[in-house]
Amino acid sequence: MKIIYLLTTGGTIEKVYSEQTGSVQNLDNKIDRYLSRLRLPDSEVRVLPLMNKDSLEMTYDDRAVILKTVRDLLADNAPIVITHGTDTMVETGLYLQRALVELKVPIILTRAMTPLGFEGSDGLQNLTESLFAARLLHPGIYVVIHNQVFPIDRVRKDHKLTRFVWMEKVS
Amino acid sequence: MKIIYLLTTGGTIEKVYSEQTGSVQNLDNKIDRYLSRLRLPDSEVRVLPLMNKDSLEMTYDDRAVILKTVRDLLADNAPIVITHGTDTMVETGLYLQRALVELKVPIILTRAMTPLGFEGSDGLQNLTESLFAARLLHPGIYVVIHNQVFPIDRVRKDHKLTRFVWMEKVS
Amino acid sequence: MKIIYLLTTGGTIEKVYSEQTGSVQNLDNKIDRYLSRLRLPDSEVRVLPLMNKDSLEMTYDDRAVILKTVRDLLADNAPIVITHGTDTMVETGLYLQRALVELKVPIILTRAMTPLGFEGSDGLQNLTESLFAARLLHPGIYVVIHNQVFPIDRVRKDHKLTRFVWMEKVS
Amino acid sequence: MKIIYLLTTGGTIEKVYSEQTGSVQNLDNKIDRYLSRLRLPDSEVRVLPLMNKDSLEMTYDDRAVILKTVRDLLADNAPIVITHGTDTMVETGLYLQRALVELKVPIILTRAMTPLGFEGSDGLQNLTESLFAARLLHPGIYVVIHNQVFPIDRVRKDHKLTRFVWMEKVS
Repeated sequence: MKIIYLLTTGGTIEKVYSEQTGSVQNLDNKIDRYLSRLRLPDSEVRVLPLMNKDSLEMTYDDRAVILKTVRDLLADNAPIVITHGTDTMVETGLYLQRALVELKVPIILTRAMTPLGFEGSDGLQNLTESLFAARLLHPGIYVVIHNQVFPIDRVRKDHKLTRFVWMEKVS
Repeated sequence: MKIIYLLTTGGTIEKVYSEQTGSVQNLDNKIDRYLSRLRLPDSEVRVLPLMNKDSLEMTYDDRAVILKTVRDLLADNAPIVITHGTDTMVETGLYLQRALVELKVPIILTRAMTPLGFEGSDGLQNLTESLFAARLLHPGIYVVIHNQVFPIDRVRKDHKLTRFVWMEKVS
Repeated sequence: MKIIYLLTTGGTIEKVYSEQTGSVQNLDNKIDRYLSRLRLPDSEVRVLPLMNKDSLEMTYDDRAVILKTVRDLLADNAPIVITHGTDTMVETGLYLQRALVELKVPIILTRAMTPLGFEGSDGLQNLTESLFAARLLHPGIYVVIHNQVFPIDRVRKDHKLTRFVWMEKVS
Repeated sequence: MKIIYLLTTGGTIEKVYSEQTGSVQNLDNKIDRYLSRLRLPDSEVRVLPLMNKDSLEMTYDDRAVILKTVRDLLADNAPIVITHGTDTMVETGLYLQRALVELKVPIILTRAMTPLGFEGSDGLQNLTESLFAARLLHPGIYVVIHNQVFPIDRVRKDHKLTRFVWMEKVS
């Protein structure tokens, strides 16, 4: 069995619809419920819920918590997937990259545009792809989403802030 | 084939998740898409989208539009189902009751607590029940939801505004 | 809380796909799992799994078990829904009708054309309609399916054996 | 846009439930319908339905059709995913391997244990993983399923014929 760590931090992928407020919010962890729909006979996914925040509300203290957790887990030599909100995902990824040198495993950031369990959600697709990428990619930090792999220093949000695209090379 | 009219006015049942804003909104009609999941070999459901509003934003001009549409349709002697937001559903129902006398068909108001297509949605259940009630109930105005039928003058929202309950009789 | 008894006997509605054999079979009860998707705040559905058979294999001993159970439950004065395979559903319904006189509650037979949980299934629709009919119909024995209610002595299978239709009156 | 060819040959992944026969069969192609649930903004998946057979019924003439199609497509230098029934998938994969030398793209065989759209199906997971693997794997022939990648000459079915496992090395 291959171990894969899955750190959850919130973002759209885990948002739920609250009947009390009539809005979507980061209230409860729900990755586990959807993870159980995947068949992973040779993978042991260990879920660690770190926080449950809209990524616009994520602070550098929060990022320090993520970094510390990642550092501790690296001793196990197992790949790490991190679910994260879109708006500051690249920021968190670059922060990890600056702090972590000589990685021996891949670290994969992923997210969703529509929450898990809502019509048309891309959450389970991205989770499936990220867990698969965790077993295939070389050491490094990546964003994995929608059948694409972006090294963290090659990705940026597009103008409308809803998608990730390749960063144009500056010559 | 029995005709059933289905008037849609918005409310939670038709809300969609907008990836641009990250919130749920009344943007597009979506009843048709879910209605097509039901098997109705002996019923012809004619959908008339009247408006697509959160029911807190519904005005008396809007209610006049609903009333006029219902009046026009009554000539066909076919039952009418109206999807509506929770907050002012009883208000609209009582308004119709005051204006319409000697009904010969049932008029059924229904709604959802979680939008159609979201995990745990009650939308398709309520739609199924309302279309079924449309063929069984006596003439009158009713709220149909969650395996229950409330005559419009016997129902009120509970304290937390999320459910309908029987109005206590005042002696 | 209104009590509704739900007797399950098998049929297509409860069939599961077996990965071992690559075929659909009546192996496990699964009504409970789907029933939990419905919101029934004022109804207490008591599920009694009687057997789990393709209705072509149902014998008169099986029907006697159903009849005995129904008789025992009638003392509670609560409506009864029975899930049943298509092929011999009318036979079972007529058998119950001959044996039970002066009914004080409705008894509703229902089924599915595609098993619960398979794409395009009509199982949850028919279950929703039957539980709703249980609270509305007059005493008697009925088939409820696809937005329709058939008194048991007015229904027959159509030529292709997949649907129920009204029996033509013999004058 | 990266082109990915998707050849479909039948097998469990495409089986449908037939209401006429009450059994699961390879009747219609349905990959397209499920493929449209995935977001693939940078990938153009070209679906080529070759046949729709239970893999036990697949003949060497059928395999020759698959081989010929693959050969023709190799000129495009795009990865190829093939959906296939379980029982003879390894046989087809080894047949392709013997015939094709100096591959410049990955060829990925995948399948499902439960058909697409049935409760608990692993079809969309395997399709997602295979399309992702198509963009990441080195040239070669592989089985991709359940978060695992098996080179075709290292895989065998287990004793119960429902899973794939690593072939033990013969020293």
